[in-house]
Amino acid sequence: MSEAAITRLGDMGRWEPDAKGRLMVAALELYTERGYEQTTVADIAQRAGVTERTFFRHFADKREVLFDGAGTLQETVVTAIATSAAQTAIEMVGTAMERAAEMMQERRDFARQRAAAIAANPSLQERELLKLAVLGAAAASALRDRGVPEPAATLAAEVGVTVFKVAFERWIDDQPDFPACIRATLEGLRALQ
Amino acid sequence: MSEAAITRLGDMGRWEPDAKGRLMVAALELYTERGYEQTTVADIAQRAGVTERTFFRHFADKREVLFDGAGTLQETVVTAIATSAAQTAIEMVGTAMERAAEMMQERRDFARQRAAAIAANPSLQERELLKLAVLGAAAASALRDRGVPEPAATLAAEVGVTVFKVAFERWIDDQPDFPACIRATLEGLRALQ
Repeated sequence: MSEAAITRLGDMGRWEPDAKGRLMVAALELYTERGYEQTTVADIAQRAGVTERTFFRHFADKREVLFDGAGTLQETVVTAIATSAAQTAIEMVGTAMERAAEMMQERRDFARQRAAAIAANPSLQERELLKLAVLGAAAASALRDRGVPEPAATLAAEVGVTVFKVAFERWIDDQPDFPACIRATLEGLRALQ
Repeated sequence: MSEAAITRLGDMGRWEPDAKGRLMVAALELYTERGYEQTTVADIAQRAGVTERTFFRHFADKREVLFDGAGTLQETVVTAIATSAAQTAIEMVGTAMERAAEMMQERRDFARQRAAAIAANPSLQERELLKLAVLGAAAASALRDRGVPEPAATLAAEVGVTVFKVAFERWIDDQPDFPACIRATLEGLRALQ
């Protein structure tokens, strides 16, 4: 991850311009090196060169380092649906997932390390699935606000989350362009019918 | 739930023909009446008229009462994909989800009580989502065995699970015919494009 990316990830507060970003990078490095279970908050703070108190100013616990971005992701998706010029529900959702992918594009290393840490731990997997379910429900709500009736809104939103998940795997696996993965997966969805 | 349905749910063992079925009914009644957290294994066994030891012969803990059917559901879906006469991946998955719905059709009260118990408890929700993710992965594997390439196999399987989830909600909400809900949701999916 570039210095610039770390700074963008970080809290822009007055006294610790990128302590949060450094903590995120340190946590992911440690989860990758020695495993999530074997890493303590003290380890993470030490690696990032900050105190444990600083860690807890940014995150409730070591798990939250992995789920900190969920709010921003959801906001991006909901805003994209609310302002989409697309005509159909699936197009609105598809565009929103592409916006989400653009937002994540420059953090591919982080995303890959994060995915590996989550895949290695069933309780993290469960939490990730719950976050995606919450994202789907928020997208369905945004679609209803655009006048899409039920059950089409929920179906389109859930299909959108599925496209996001499948495209994400392709992206961290071997395709460097996440928005292009979203478009290719949407194309694959149309071809399924 | 009818006596016959309880018997079918139950273990067909020699000494306790429907102890398992009675335990499942008792557990769901108690989760509905007083909440999942407030129900103990002792309560469930007492309501079912069996010993705690009998409970533990059938279930590892009170949570497993809710997830006991996941294996059968997955087997039904995988077998249906393996033997489907359909031509496309989405048709294979659609047929498989219809078979799963047929299997669950006569347990609507149980399914509804179970869904309510799960919705009321985030850790049960997380487990339910993980079970559905495992079902999706198994369906994708079955599709690959039928010659469907990736990422189409994963995409079709995940879309199939989405159809199942959306149709399930309609079924326990206000539509009495679960297989018909699957067909209507698949139709809705085609109309989304």
